Amino acid sequence: MHDPLATWQAIQSIRQQSPVVHSITNYVVMNNTANALLALGASPVMAHAPEEMVEMVGIASALVLNIGTLSKEWIRAMFMAAEAARKKGTPIILDPVGAGATSYRTSTARELLQEARPAILRGNASEIMATCGDLAQTKGVDSTEASHDALSAAHSLQRTYGATVSISGETDYIVGDGRTIRVHNGHPLMPRVTGLGCTATALTGAFAAVTPDPVLAAAQAMAVMGIAGEMAAEKDEGPGSLQLHFIDALYRMDRADVERRIKVEA
Amino acid sequence: MHDPLATWQAIQSIRQQSPVVHSITNYVVMNNTANALLALGASPVMAHAPEEMVEMVGIASALVLNIGTLSKEWIRAMFMAAEAARKKGTPIILDPVGAGATSYRTSTARELLQEARPAILRGNASEIMATCGDLAQTKGVDSTEASHDALSAAHSLQRTYGATVSISGETDYIVGDGRTIRVHNGHPLMPRVTGLGCTATALTGAFAAVTPDPVLAAAQAMAVMGIAGEMAAEKDEGPGSLQLHFIDALYRMDRADVERRIKVEA
Amino acid sequence: MHDPLATWQAIQSIRQQSPVVHSITNYVVMNNTANALLALGASPVMAHAPEEMVEMVGIASALVLNIGTLSKEWIRAMFMAAEAARKKGTPIILDPVGAGATSYRTSTARELLQEARPAILRGNASEIMATCGDLAQTKGVDSTEASHDALSAAHSLQRTYGATVSISGETDYIVGDGRTIRVHNGHPLMPRVTGLGCTATALTGAFAAVTPDPVLAAAQAMAVMGIAGEMAAEKDEGPGSLQLHFIDALYRMDRADVERRIKVEA
Repeated sequence: MHDPLATWQAIQSIRQQSPVVHSITNYVVMNNTANALLALGASPVMAHAPEEMVEMVGIASALVLNIGTLSKEWIRAMFMAAEAARKKGTPIILDPVGAGATSYRTSTARELLQEARPAILRGNASEIMATCGDLAQTKGVDSTEASHDALSAAHSLQRTYGATVSISGETDYIVGDGRTIRVHNGHPLMPRVTGLGCTATALTGAFAAVTPDPVLAAAQAMAVMGIAGEMAAEKDEGPGSLQLHFIDALYRMDRADVERRIKVEA
Repeated sequence: MHDPLATWQAIQSIRQQSPVVHSITNYVVMNNTANALLALGASPVMAHAPEEMVEMVGIASALVLNIGTLSKEWIRAMFMAAEAARKKGTPIILDPVGAGATSYRTSTARELLQEARPAILRGNASEIMATCGDLAQTKGVDSTEASHDALSAAHSLQRTYGATVSISGETDYIVGDGRTIRVHNGHPLMPRVTGLGCTATALTGAFAAVTPDPVLAAAQAMAVMGIAGEMAAEKDEGPGSLQLHFIDALYRMDRADVERRIKVEA
Repeated sequence: MHDPLATWQAIQSIRQQSPVVHSITNYVVMNNTANALLALGASPVMAHAPEEMVEMVGIASALVLNIGTLSKEWIRAMFMAAEAARKKGTPIILDPVGAGATSYRTSTARELLQEARPAILRGNASEIMATCGDLAQTKGVDSTEASHDALSAAHSLQRTYGATVSISGETDYIVGDGRTIRVHNGHPLMPRVTGLGCTATALTGAFAAVTPDPVLAAAQAMAVMGIAGEMAAEKDEGPGSLQLHFIDALYRMDRADVERRIKVEA
């Protein structure tokens, strides 16, 4: 199949350049996230001390901010890192984990969106809608309408903040300026592994480091996530196995895997 | 075999209701704990910021407090979460990890027990005895006597604080008001995987969310832990494999697995 | 093959004595590190609260300090733990993760080296060179010269601080007073698993708990790391599988595995 996203070339670039992806992320997923980045070919760095934020961002090709287990001190580090990244022109990826679950998360997600001006905002439908809040009109909760509402929220956020919005789900939607890409890869067992959403955000950072267009970078990341999940699910016997084979699949994925499996509508 | 604990129905309830289990737990086990809850069918949430404690507890069906890597700030969050849970009637499960190893752990475990009034206290024999302290008379250290001492401590704690006490070991003992349940499931390799005790506590939270009787909930959790461990050990080649197959077993466990394997004395 | 390091006896001692290894380490690797120690036969403890540092060090047979995700509070705990360990004569192992990447890491590594006076400093070539800084003359960046420079830095650090220096890489170098041991075990896929360097440091703690000579302890740990990696790589299909089989290999490793595989030059 034709790959309109040039995904295979992007994978090769990551493997060759090994871009440093600096993640300030949650405690639950740090290990898997680092392993997924390493398996793909990127160089993960995890650091949150204010004393080293500017220097650490200085060596990174992408900055990933994830509020999964947020606290005042970590949020402060995120703002420092974001400022340093903006000055340097380093792409920022924001994952508003749990936005909507508590007002602290929702407001932190919005403040980071406003101040950090991430290139890409990646979350599931409810997180994107919660981050958007009043900007979009929420019309219902069933999945079809939620899809519609999430897309509406994504367009509002994109217009207001200029961020590409990547909504993960059975179909992933990447909403950029005037463009929407749909990615149909993935496997239903993936949500049963903790932190694969956070991993998607981290991989989005790796692709953003080698693909200047944030819409393409976000779509490449979601396609590779989905393809690795499909490859892993062929071997799996449950979510424990899936996590392991997912990491292996990121490492072993070759051109034929990508070309044969990728399902995108650009 | 007859299942006096209605364990299979409880598993089905968790899979259908997907109860939110809010864990304030230690850094070492967060990932496995979240994966075990997801594999079983529950919805894990990990959050520790004081700013969101009340709201996060508000969406949870059980609250798990685990002092494995405690610090002043996290303990403060635990007390806030516990107060919110008590007001709402949400069951609290306390894991006094390492009680007895340092006086800070022992006193924190006791203060949480006194203030949070958990429905269930789950630990190994030495943690239960250390949490109890002077309440029980410690008579020796060999394993038979330790068992006796731990049971004696459990009864003291149960009478004083009203908590069901779940002691994990080769045989698990669940001590409630006037009832003691013994669970004989499990595998000797399980203690070689870090945090399976913490996982037991987290799963106890999931069962407490669907089973109102804390004695039954604690026993169901320990039986399911043990059964998953036995299923995993049939495939394993070491503790790395055991952890993976344990997660898969939680996900795949069916009625026949439960009925054929469960070994409880109620 | 003759084992000049008495590695097999040291493994047996760890399995029999199950020494407590207290680690103050980074969030990314805590789980794997604990699992590697358990699989080898040691007893991992992770704790960072200043309130319990002295007591926790009191029950430990080795103290591992790892600055991978450092912060002011954790560094403070490291200094407290180090002081308690020195008073008690407990061996300290320092891992200067990321030294050179930021000045905060470099200076923290140096201060810990100076104050804690670790028995063993373990890092990769660039971390050792950065920790050394002006003490050694850096001549270039290609791998041959880096090796030379790293060894030069190791000798300087050894002379100045009295610490054995363990440099991991394709060949591991252990530099003690007048002795240099080379370990040739390992597998090229190992750097693709996050935190195997940190695991090497933790295992070095376990060996230091049973082997009084720090040069031998460090070499035993690196040999066992490499052998487990080789055993795991025979089964692996990628870095996810490697991590799992590595843990299993630590658990299953027997005398024949050690004697047949060990490649050291003492």
